[in-house]
Formats: sequence, C-alpha cells, structure tokens
Amino acid sequence: MKKIKTAIIGAAGYTGGELLRLLLHHPACDLVYVHSNSQKGKKVTEVHPDLIGDTELVFTDKVKTEGIEAVFLGLPHGETKGFLENHTFSTDTVIIDLSTDFRDESNGFVYGLPEVNKHKIKSSTKIANPGCFATGIQLALIPAVAKGWVKDTVQISGITGSTGAGKKLADTSHFSYRTGNMSVYKLFTHQHLKEIKQTFGQLFAEFNQEILFVPYRGNFSRGIWITAYFPFEGDLDDARKVYKDFYHDAPFTHVSDQDIDMKQAVNTNKCILHLQKEKGQLVIYSAIDNLLKGASGQAVQNFNIAFGLEETAGLHLKSIAF
Amino acid sequence: MKKIKTAIIGAAGYTGGELLRLLLHHPACDLVYVHSNSQKGKKVTEVHPDLIGDTELVFTDKVKTEGIEAVFLGLPHGETKGFLENHTFSTDTVIIDLSTDFRDESNGFVYGLPEVNKHKIKSSTKIANPGCFATGIQLALIPAVAKGWVKDTVQISGITGSTGAGKKLADTSHFSYRTGNMSVYKLFTHQHLKEIKQTFGQLFAEFNQEILFVPYRGNFSRGIWITAYFPFEGDLDDARKVYKDFYHDAPFTHVSDQDIDMKQAVNTNKCILHLQKEKGQLVIYSAIDNLLKGASGQAVQNFNIAFGLEETAGLHLKSIAF
Amino acid sequence: MKKIKTAIIGAAGYTGGELLRLLLHHPACDLVYVHSNSQKGKKVTEVHPDLIGDTELVFTDKVKTEGIEAVFLGLPHGETKGFLENHTFSTDTVIIDLSTDFRDESNGFVYGLPEVNKHKIKSSTKIANPGCFATGIQLALIPAVAKGWVKDTVQISGITGSTGAGKKLADTSHFSYRTGNMSVYKLFTHQHLKEIKQTFGQLFAEFNQEILFVPYRGNFSRGIWITAYFPFEGDLDDARKVYKDFYHDAPFTHVSDQDIDMKQAVNTNKCILHLQKEKGQLVIYSAIDNLLKGASGQAVQNFNIAFGLEETAGLHLKSIAF
Amino acid sequence: MKKIKTAIIGAAGYTGGELLRLLLHHPACDLVYVHSNSQKGKKVTEVHPDLIGDTELVFTDKVKTEGIEAVFLGLPHGETKGFLENHTFSTDTVIIDLSTDFRDESNGFVYGLPEVNKHKIKSSTKIANPGCFATGIQLALIPAVAKGWVKDTVQISGITGSTGAGKKLADTSHFSYRTGNMSVYKLFTHQHLKEIKQTFGQLFAEFNQEILFVPYRGNFSRGIWITAYFPFEGDLDDARKVYKDFYHDAPFTHVSDQDIDMKQAVNTNKCILHLQKEKGQLVIYSAIDNLLKGASGQAVQNFNIAFGLEETAGLHLKSIAF
Repeated sequence: MKKIKTAIIGAAGYTGGELLRLLLHHPACDLVYVHSNSQKGKKVTEVHPDLIGDTELVFTDKVKTEGIEAVFLGLPHGETKGFLENHTFSTDTVIIDLSTDFRDESNGFVYGLPEVNKHKIKSSTKIANPGCFATGIQLALIPAVAKGWVKDTVQISGITGSTGAGKKLADTSHFSYRTGNMSVYKLFTHQHLKEIKQTFGQLFAEFNQEILFVPYRGNFSRGIWITAYFPFEGDLDDARKVYKDFYHDAPFTHVSDQDIDMKQAVNTNKCILHLQKEKGQLVIYSAIDNLLKGASGQAVQNFNIAFGLEETAGLHLKSIAF
Repeated sequence: MKKIKTAIIGAAGYTGGELLRLLLHHPACDLVYVHSNSQKGKKVTEVHPDLIGDTELVFTDKVKTEGIEAVFLGLPHGETKGFLENHTFSTDTVIIDLSTDFRDESNGFVYGLPEVNKHKIKSSTKIANPGCFATGIQLALIPAVAKGWVKDTVQISGITGSTGAGKKLADTSHFSYRTGNMSVYKLFTHQHLKEIKQTFGQLFAEFNQEILFVPYRGNFSRGIWITAYFPFEGDLDDARKVYKDFYHDAPFTHVSDQDIDMKQAVNTNKCILHLQKEKGQLVIYSAIDNLLKGASGQAVQNFNIAFGLEETAGLHLKSIAF
Repeated sequence: MKKIKTAIIGAAGYTGGELLRLLLHHPACDLVYVHSNSQKGKKVTEVHPDLIGDTELVFTDKVKTEGIEAVFLGLPHGETKGFLENHTFSTDTVIIDLSTDFRDESNGFVYGLPEVNKHKIKSSTKIANPGCFATGIQLALIPAVAKGWVKDTVQISGITGSTGAGKKLADTSHFSYRTGNMSVYKLFTHQHLKEIKQTFGQLFAEFNQEILFVPYRGNFSRGIWITAYFPFEGDLDDARKVYKDFYHDAPFTHVSDQDIDMKQAVNTNKCILHLQKEKGQLVIYSAIDNLLKGASGQAVQNFNIAFGLEETAGLHLKSIAF
Repeated sequence: MKKIKTAIIGAAGYTGGELLRLLLHHPACDLVYVHSNSQKGKKVTEVHPDLIGDTELVFTDKVKTEGIEAVFLGLPHGETKGFLENHTFSTDTVIIDLSTDFRDESNGFVYGLPEVNKHKIKSSTKIANPGCFATGIQLALIPAVAKGWVKDTVQISGITGSTGAGKKLADTSHFSYRTGNMSVYKLFTHQHLKEIKQTFGQLFAEFNQEILFVPYRGNFSRGIWITAYFPFEGDLDDARKVYKDFYHDAPFTHVSDQDIDMKQAVNTNKCILHLQKEKGQLVIYSAIDNLLKGASGQAVQNFNIAFGLEETAGLHLKSIAF
C-alpha cells in the first residue's frame, strides 16, 4: 500500500501524543515529521515515554509543507488560523485541525463529525475536528434532533476525565484536589454548545431549543459520560430502532440494549449509546474516550475517510475494559 | 456530665461503624453495648480495625432494653418494624432508626431532618433518620420550596460514593469495575424521592412538581454531590440571602459564596451549598458525606437534639480536605 | 493469509476477555468458538460489553476439538489437567495454558516466556503461559541472573492492580476498601516464586539465592510495578548495556534510559525496564500490564511464535498513557 | 480552662491547613492569628474552604510575637532559621517547627517524636517536628533498634500520598499522570534517612546498619505505608510483646494482631503497626496519615505534651475508614 506522507504540528500535548500512538502503527500512514516548538530536538520517546520501542522520531520546530499529503494540527485554540496564514500547504493536502478555530466551518472547513458529514469529509481537504464534549453530546442527540423529536429544553449532565483539560498544570488537575472529588465548571456555558447547536440547526432547520448542560470534572483521567434527556411522547422501542438505523453505517457508534458504563469506551474510538424512557422523558447515555472519539481517534477516522481508506484503519483499539 | 446509656443495633456495617467512630468519643454518650448478629463474640476492632486503641467492646447478639436511654437502629431496610415488635424499649428511650422503614412518619416517628424538624425532634423519642441522597437533595431545595419558588420540574444530577451501597459485595462495587468509571442507576426512580416529596409537601402544601433525578455511581468511596435546578425569575443575591437566612441556625449547613467541591464536606457532618443563576435557572450545588450528614452523623445530631445537648456535640469532625 | 482456527476455553473471566479483545482483531486468527460453562448461551457482548460492534459470537459449553489448530485455556488454576484428560485435541493443536498447572514444564509443556524460551516455544505445541508477577520479576532479573551477577538475596517489592485477583468478588477488591488504600499479602510466599526460581535455575545452574518478595495490592485496576535489587559491584553503564543486548531481539521488552512510571506499559504488551545503581545495589524497575504481558498478551505472543507469525502480530496496542 | 495563645506561621499550605483544622476545635487553644505572606488579607475559608462555618479568621502577614505562648512554624524548608533570627519570641514561647531545619537538634531544638522523646519535649520550648516518612519508619523500627536486634541492612519500601509533595503544582502530582500509576523517587537517598539514623544512634549507640529505603509515589492523596524488615533470629511472639510494651504508654501508636491496611490510619493521628516473621526476617508494617501523625497531628501532640495537657487533646479524630 502506498503510504500517505503525514505530519503532526503541535505533537507534544495530550492529543498530539494520542495521534502519535495511532499513526505510528497506522497501515497507510508514513509519519514524515512531528513538530513541537517547546520540545524541539527531543526524542519523541522522551516526551511520550510509553512509545519506547515504537519510534526514533525527534521533534522538530521546522514546518515543512512540501510533499506533505496530510497534516494534523494540534495547536492551542486560537493559533491555527495564524499558523495556516504563515505556512502554505498544497491545496491537495488534507488538513485536519483539532482546535476550535474552524468548527464554525469558516475558511472552507468541514465539521468533521463522520456520523453526520461523511460525504462532505470525503470530498474535503479541510476538516475541523469536533470537540470532545461536543462529540459525546451530539451522538447522543442527533437521531432525535433529525427526527424533530426535541421540542423542549434538553437537560444534560456530562462528566469528563482530567485529560480533557490538557497537560498544563492547574489547581483543578492537582491530584490531591481531584482524586475522590467532584465539581462543576462552566455551568450552562460550555464553549462546545456552539458547535452542537450549529449541527442541530443543520440537521433540523427549526431547531432552537435550549440546551442546559452541566459539565463535571470527573475523578478519572480518560473518558466522557453524557446523560441527556427531553420530553418524548413516542415509544422507547421505536426510538431505539431509529437510533440503530441512523448509526447503521457508523463503524464506531453503537446502540447497546443493555445498561452501559463509561469504561466500555475508554481507550477506543467507540461511542456507546443506551436509551431509556422514564417519566415521559427519552434519556440517552453516551460514553466516549475524550482523547480518541473525542479528539485524536476521530481525527484519524476523518483522515481515513478523506483518503478513501477503510474507515476503521488503525482504529481497532483494545478497550481498557477495567 | 451524666452520660446517656446508649446501644447500637446492627453495628457491623458501614453506618454502624460510623456510629461507633462518633459515639466512642462523644462527650455525653456511654456506649453500653453494640449488637450484631453476624459478628457476635468478635471484638469491635476485628470488624472495624481502624478503632484499634479506642475500644475493647465485643459484639453481642443479645438485645438488652432495660436501662437503655438511646438506641440507634442500623438494621437492613424492612427489618426495623419487626425488631421493634419483638423488643420493647421504655417509652422514654430515644429510638433513632437509620432505615427507610419509618421515614413516612408512621408509628409515631418524626422525620429527622433537623433543618426542618428541629422542634419536633426535640420533643420526640422516635426519630427516622433521613436517607443520604434525600438529605443532600432536600438541603439543596428546601428554602426555595418553602418560598414557593419551585413552579416547574426540578432537574437533579447526583453522584454518590461506593459506601452508599453498603458493605455487601456487588458487581458494581468491584474495584476493577468502579475505578475510573461512571454509570447511572435507578434513573428517575430512586427510592429517596418519596421522602423528599413528603418534606416538600409539608413545607409548601401545593408542591407537586416533578423531580427528575439522575443518580450516578461515583468513582470514590465517600461523599455525595448534588446539582439541582429549576426555572427562577428572581435575583441570585436575594436567593442567596434567603438560603443563608433559612440556615442561619443550622450549625452544619452552610451557604458558600465561592465555588465548592465535594471533598470540602467529606468526613464531616456538614452540608455545603452554593448557588448560581444562569439561563433563567436557579442552580444549587450541595455536598455532603453520605455516611455522616447522610447517615450516622445526622443520627448523632438528632441524638444531641433529642437529649437537649449542644447540637454539635461529638461532631466537630476534621474534613479529609484532600 | 490463511487463518488459524482458534478456540478459547474459559472465556468469561478477565484473561478470557482480554484474549477476546486481542484475537477478534488478530490478522491471522479465526476465532471458531469461545467456551464458558457459566455463561453458555449468552452473547459475548453481554459479558464483555466493551466488545459491542466487534463480534456476534455466543458462548458455548461444548468443547469441540476437531479442526481446532490453537486453543487457549483460561480455566481456574488446577482444572486444566483434568480438562485435557477429558478432551483430546490433535497432537498438532497448539495448546496455550494460562493457568499455573504446567508451569513446572510437566507433561511436555514449555514455559512460555519468549525472552528466554523463544526457540523452544517455536517448536512446541504445549505452552504454559507465565504468571503476571512472575513475568514482571523475571524480566527485571534474567539478564543479571544469566551473567551470574546475583550472589546475594534479591529484595523485591511489587504492586499489582486489582484485576490480578480476578473477577470474583472479594473483600479486598471491594471498591470502598481498596480505593486510596495499600496493603500487603502473601508476604515472601507468593506462588509465582516457584516458576521464577525454576527459570533462574535453568539460566544459571548454581543459582540458589533467596528472593524476598513483598507483594502489594495496588489502588489501580491494571498494571504491575516491580522494584528489584541486589548487591552489585559492577558498573551501571555496563549493566544497562548487558540488559539492552539481552533484550535486543525482544520486541516488547525495552530498557529505558529515563525514569519510568507504570502507566507507560498499561494496556500494552510491553515490559519497560529501567536500571539504577545506588548504595552498591543494582536496582531494576519493571512495568507491565498484568493482563497483557502478564497474561493474555503474552499468550498471543506465544501463539504468534508457535505459528511462525510476526511476533508482534495483533499486539501493536495503544497504551493508556494517562 | 485557660487557653493557650497560639499562632500559626505559614498557614496557607497543606500542613498549615491541617493545623487549622485541628487547632480551631482544640479545647485548650486560642488561635490568635494565622500568618501567610501569599494569602494575606484573605479569609481563611477562601484558602481552606472546608473550614466554612468554623472560623472568621483572616490571614495576616504581620508577625506578632508579644503574648504568644505557642507558635507553629509551617515555613518552607530552609526558611525557619532566618525567620527566627528576624522575629524574637519570648523564651517561654513554645516553638514547634514543622520544617527540616532543626531536626538535627541544633539551636536547642528537641526532636519531637513523642514515642522516644516525651520527657525532653515536656521540658522544652523548641520542638523540631519529625518528617512524615521519618515518623512512619522510626515507629516501625524503634523497639527493634533499641533492643539491638537490627544487625544487618534494613530493607524498606514506603508509599506516600500526593499531599506529601505539597500544594505546589508539579508534573508528578498532575492528576492525569498520577491516577492509576506507580513510580519511585529519591531511591535510597530520601532526606528523611538522616533524622532516622540520628534517632537510631541515640537509642542504640553502636547502630550503624545500612537502611535501603525505596520511596514510592502512591496513587492516593493521604497516607503512608511502610514495609520494613531485617534478619531476625528471635521469636515473633516475643517481638510483638516487646513492641506492645515499648508503645504501652503511646496513645496513638498501636500494635495490631491482625493484618492491617493503610486507610485504618488515614485522617487520624494513629500509627498502626503489625509484625510478621517469615524467611528469617522480622517484618514490620506501619501505617500513618502523612499530614497528621506525619506532620500537623504530631505537632499538636507535641503542643499537648509541652503544655502538660492530655496528650490526646484535640486529636480524637475520626478515621476515613473507607
């Protein structure tokens, strides 16, 4: 198989590390270089020591554009735009941006949620990879929104692992604080609500319901759990069928008939859903790994789609399970 | 100080152990005997080894009623009624039941939530100690309910530590399952809703709003976190004032002006509250220790009230903090 | 590629689940059936729900031997012998046993530690897969033992995740007990010492040093950490070189020049080692995943070797990293 | 009871917070002021929010010496000496220093390990409070050292909670790194070995054995576990008796006849010990809370002794237990 010449820009952080973990063993990827300003000159295995034995790559702070067929951008939010203005890739180069900068589909970017936009992604060279909470929440609600079922406020509680807040040290990611603890942040105002509403509006033009989302800091490093519900007059079995049909072709998004727990999805690119109906509400649970389906795994899924590869290439990941 | 002759029935479990930890050092308590059918003949320190150095008591399966001035009942739910039929305590004996059996205030029991019923508790000899989730949720909402502010459905997400499920082994309390995990149980149907609605109805006769409560299994051993909200047209500052006024005389229930986290309350008898207003909702966070303010600590608080002691006697507990 | 017809016996437990996770995506494996007495008739995804979307297999309690080219035995310790007496596989069938039963190389079994016995494994059809602690400890010490460096007692502390104790409920794997806790078990008498000493004796005939091994129950679900040391007069750089040379051809066992931590190896088949010299002692740290390099991953590695496949086939696993 | 006028210098960190938690409810303590340069002007409850309802104190950066009868120094290591040169307390003022600066008993300080030095502490006004690992290790070994039993190298593995490393943010206390992880630091060279050897030399003049101590970073916030052993020809029952006799008058140090686990001691001022004999070694386990018996709790114990109070005053702490 001819391999795709690939670069990672900003590869020293958590999502950059996950990209490395995935791409180093991806059957169709030739990782040409990995870029980091902060870690230039260091071996990749110094920064991501779990990769020992997998690579001899060294971080560079040089951005080579020539001959690069795919580039993943793992820059801090707000820096991608400036980066792309200063570095001109070929118009054929597939650019997959993990920041929030182009999730509004500005500058020709497509919103990279394959369950909704697979066809657009396939024919695009600019893909804005969704946010982690945004992915977990959208996959929980999209089939219902598309059917026009959501006619009232949506109530959501979501819990994220500490890796969602990045590698940077912070009081709320100090182990002594976070272990055995719970707390809420950005009540009802999480920045991912913007991309969620954008998608819902594209799926169902008249969608304008309130979404009340309580984001929790979880006492674990990886994973996102979402509980979402809204008043629903329909039948649970029908709802399950609609969800299963909607995700019929989605290789990573699965509707379970049994109760689920978050770790089923951790360290995989899966989104696992379960539906209940109680007290007149349709309740949907959604579990993902925030760094995989919520970031780097979905980015590789988009890479696969954009290059016409098997959508699951390099993404048959073993769950942590326990 | 003349000490109160006290017994614990069913002292081998988690709440029984907490009662022991509290009562052994309580300044007005003379712990006459501790009862357990399963552990009879064993030293208390064999079953609760952290109590080494604190007691030489041995579990008995004999129930002595004579001369007992206070008895704590830590029997499994459903067994208290039968127990009291078979064992007749003096009509002066203060009975504090930690099970669900008399929380409906049947058989002359008073619902032992001091923030609401202090006067009734003071003059009662039969006290039904509230449930853990019930305590956290009620303290989050009572001032608002009493003011008639709750005119629509209340949305609640609550997360509990594993000790809430007791000492018994279960798949969902297996360490390999629960660590780093999240899941939901008893969606919208948790048994504590019954006592919550009873109290709300007593405080505000026409209260009949729906309460949609999502209970989570948390990845920690102790603590309960509650996020509750409902549409509210009033002003946040006014709401905070109402809450502070309502709990002015409550020595353990505090309204914080800053963001809170759950561990602030863990290993104490406190309930720590914080209020926000966002998107037209009044949001109340509530943090307690499920085994203390949610069970054994509140039981001792009720004991203090019933015997006219300082309400905080034996309950100046050091928080775990980290 | 012609695929190898494979069965798993006893596939409902932790190691059985890991085998399923690995073999379902193994490029050379055709999983013909999975056996479990306790779960017969249930879908694999009911018992291992993280496998949703990966398989439609159903557990059977029938043991088919005909046409099976490879069989993994995940039976409880002590039951393998009886099983093999009652079920006769073809003499060509590769049997990989994960129990302790044949680790003494009785009945024609080879001890399946590839770093030592790769050639024997390659030509064998009966492989006794090593224990988890045994793997972590042996890989920490083998190069030193083989060189005759170990002339005095070896001191070892080792910490294991809760999955090492299996799926069965137990007081010491109750979440409320284990979270945030530490304790020691089987002090100096862990059953894996037997296989460790056997290997050491094979590598260096006169080896008869005492091994004082303190096994800890760790507050995590996956992983083993080993710290081993003994008096050593040689030079650290030389020791590192000897270790690197020894493991030169081992695709999963790596000697790091930097400090290591356990999670670098978790959810991979790697063993990551690091050496220090201090106070006249050569100190070796070793990190593995107890369910992978310590059990099912090594079993698949042995399968690969026995069938002449690439040793890493199906084992390019993404570490959990965080 | 006349209360002792007390100050805390450097009260914004972890040990300062613990001192506050203890002293605010101490029956003989009048907390006159709490000092912090970094937090001056802030309410204590802003920095230690779990203390809500317990105090209205505000941090000051003014050091008042007049009329202060007891002062606890929680300054960074190395800063106490300079502080005491710049601020002159009355010669009657009891100074309890939690830093390492005077643990060598320079400048008239007494090493504040009550199990060894109670009489010296009672008549002293300058007390150097022991280190956390130092406390756990010394209490494990002192009776044996005093008896002259330790005639060979002592092997120790010790595991500490993250609070041992303080409030400061660091890579190794990032939640994403530390949760579910294990690692070793300061191999064989931990700074507490110095004070340990000093005490051992005082107890048994000819003590000069090597102590090989492997310190682990534990995956929990509070607690220290120590496993220590050395060759021992005596009898286990005799050893237990010697230990029990030695600690007969120590109100917090207990020798258990059963297996122990670390959480038995967490959130208490206890040190819980257990002895085993195996393979010719006497093995002692020791469990403490690093912030209590390992720091602030022991400081209050020293305060009690120095002022002739009940040694346990203010220290009947409820264990976390789970």
